[in-house]
Amino acid sequence: MRRERLREEAERFIRACGGELGWSREATESRVRDVREAIASAGRYEHTAEELRHGARMAWRNSNRCIGRLFWETLEVRDARHLDTEEAIFESLLGHIEYATNGGKVRPAITVFPADRSPEERVRLWNYQLIRYAGYETEHGIVGDPDSVAMTNVCRKLGWSGEGTAFDVLPLVVQVGGREPKLFPIPRELVLEVPIAHPELAGFAELGLKWYAVPIVSNMRLDIGGVSYSAAPFNGWYMGTEIAARNFADAGRYDMLPRVASLMGLDTSRESSLWRDRALVELNIAVLHSYKRQGVSIVDHHTAARQFVQFEERERTCGRDVTGEWTWLIPPVSPAATPVFHRHYDNRTVTPNFFYPDEAAPPESRTCPFSAGAAATS
Amino acid sequence: MRRERLREEAERFIRACGGELGWSREATESRVRDVREAIASAGRYEHTAEELRHGARMAWRNSNRCIGRLFWETLEVRDARHLDTEEAIFESLLGHIEYATNGGKVRPAITVFPADRSPEERVRLWNYQLIRYAGYETEHGIVGDPDSVAMTNVCRKLGWSGEGTAFDVLPLVVQVGGREPKLFPIPRELVLEVPIAHPELAGFAELGLKWYAVPIVSNMRLDIGGVSYSAAPFNGWYMGTEIAARNFADAGRYDMLPRVASLMGLDTSRESSLWRDRALVELNIAVLHSYKRQGVSIVDHHTAARQFVQFEERERTCGRDVTGEWTWLIPPVSPAATPVFHRHYDNRTVTPNFFYPDEAAPPESRTCPFSAGAAATS
Repeated sequence: MRRERLREEAERFIRACGGELGWSREATESRVRDVREAIASAGRYEHTAEELRHGARMAWRNSNRCIGRLFWETLEVRDARHLDTEEAIFESLLGHIEYATNGGKVRPAITVFPADRSPEERVRLWNYQLIRYAGYETEHGIVGDPDSVAMTNVCRKLGWSGEGTAFDVLPLVVQVGGREPKLFPIPRELVLEVPIAHPELAGFAELGLKWYAVPIVSNMRLDIGGVSYSAAPFNGWYMGTEIAARNFADAGRYDMLPRVASLMGLDTSRESSLWRDRALVELNIAVLHSYKRQGVSIVDHHTAARQFVQFEERERTCGRDVTGEWTWLIPPVSPAATPVFHRHYDNRTVTPNFFYPDEAAPPESRTCPFSAGAAATS
Repeated sequence: MRRERLREEAERFIRACGGELGWSREATESRVRDVREAIASAGRYEHTAEELRHGARMAWRNSNRCIGRLFWETLEVRDARHLDTEEAIFESLLGHIEYATNGGKVRPAITVFPADRSPEERVRLWNYQLIRYAGYETEHGIVGDPDSVAMTNVCRKLGWSGEGTAFDVLPLVVQVGGREPKLFPIPRELVLEVPIAHPELAGFAELGLKWYAVPIVSNMRLDIGGVSYSAAPFNGWYMGTEIAARNFADAGRYDMLPRVASLMGLDTSRESSLWRDRALVELNIAVLHSYKRQGVSIVDHHTAARQFVQFEERERTCGRDVTGEWTWLIPPVSPAATPVFHRHYDNRTVTPNFFYPDEAAPPESRTCPFSAGAAATS
């Protein structure tokens, strides 16, 4: 039964892949036969490099929550299926960070580690994103990112200790099969960060805010044609609102709106002064300004929304339906001022795609592929 | 079969109503028996004044798209079920406008006209809201509210002609049964309006913006215990974003963001200056400021969201589940800065409730009860 389902999904994927890549009918059917035989004899099949590359790109294209999908075909697919030691995997993750960061000109990439064959061989990355700031519970409240408190405690139990600043990069935690997870600090020079300043508000830089350049989501499972890759970290570049309107602004995250408002001299004694909204916009302006000034790729939400509409049109031209999740696609700043807000999306799940490892996980821990860390929780 | 369903819905409503209003068990069962007999003999039943009042309030309480439901118990229910001429209905609508406007201290109200018995007796209000500005297609583009172009053309065919300004109040169009609809201009002195100025931006008033004080939704059908009231206009007070972030800001409505940005001297040559977002916030500040200055009830979206959370808590205390539609509950400005964004809502439809007369109508024409005219279309 399981084998039967794998066969069906594999065939569907191979045919879709062949169709999109212009394989001849003979080549496609021959490949389907091979895959069918492999599944019949071994209970599994392996993707060719071409299938892996195109399958991963399709997974991005099918990511309902992602507004950045116009660029799905540019995804660099790094084949790391041969790696089976924690050290080699760690080295490959560093390679991903370097490749994706690219001195600021961020390149969308995914690194695919061995497929899930058996629990003994399964590769797991414990990090939510490869680069993420720690969060420490202290007697004066949380220092750092409240979202990372649990992971920070895990790292501490594994022997790590951070400096205790608001922006300590967490180490990578890699687990292979049933072995103990191994912890690897990321060399500081590989983590490109952007100090946040505002183009007009002089005191803004003194808030001491900074953020990392590249969001690399590492807790989602890639599924291509029935084959699961539990470790397949991927990245796009940031949309400004993810950093400014969620990571910095959410009351449950860095909670900076009151401090920005105070810096701006706004009247915070009554909500109707809209001090939160004013502070939020300036925070977003500061983030976009700072990334651009430093030459680090970032997109504003208006441009991203327009690009998404382009993506929709291009997909329609290719005869494909676009699926999407409205609640995640709308940006958290001025959503109605973007075209996405006024459109309807079909939230069907199409494969290949990315999935949460444990579908029973609380939605709060979920994130948008390629547009990580900052979308709605609804 | 139809009768059977009516009996079930009626009984469910009567029992819920009796339970909430503290009727004795005997009183409730006696009323259920009466209703059952009425349905068996006549195929219908009539609500008592008490049932109508509480049923209409429950309908507000159950309105999934409305963020203003904390005040559901304060709804004034005007019983106009005895009116059957267009003129009497028109007079009653004027009474509603006056009562609700109340010199600016807006009072939530609903006026319930005769229940839908037969097509010959059915009362229909053709207006989307009782007060709404006309939209004229001209060779230089649309003057007024683009959302009203169709209704404006209908009114013109019925003999009406407006002055051609951007803010001409449409006449009321009342239809009883199969008779020709009748058109009634609203006396100017009954329509309270608010000229929009900004507390700091001096040139803002010269944009010549104004809006009416009270949104009175008139195109929804009220359903209480299986009884349909096609004409049952209702109102709450405005949330600022409905006017500023949708009516004034939407590109398909008054499209004011470019003009506000120009007034503010913003750089509109690139999206990443976030000129749209800055202009949007100031437009919202102007609307809240102007309504408050003139003593006209309005609520900002932060306060409204907090009130909604209070409503949720109060409902839970009463042992009732809260239903809601996230895509409509989140405000169109800084949604993630409100608690509603971070919560989950069950979008089941519970009755009594308000429904669109034709469920096949395009979603664009739909609106949020008691919070009219400005929510998401998704």
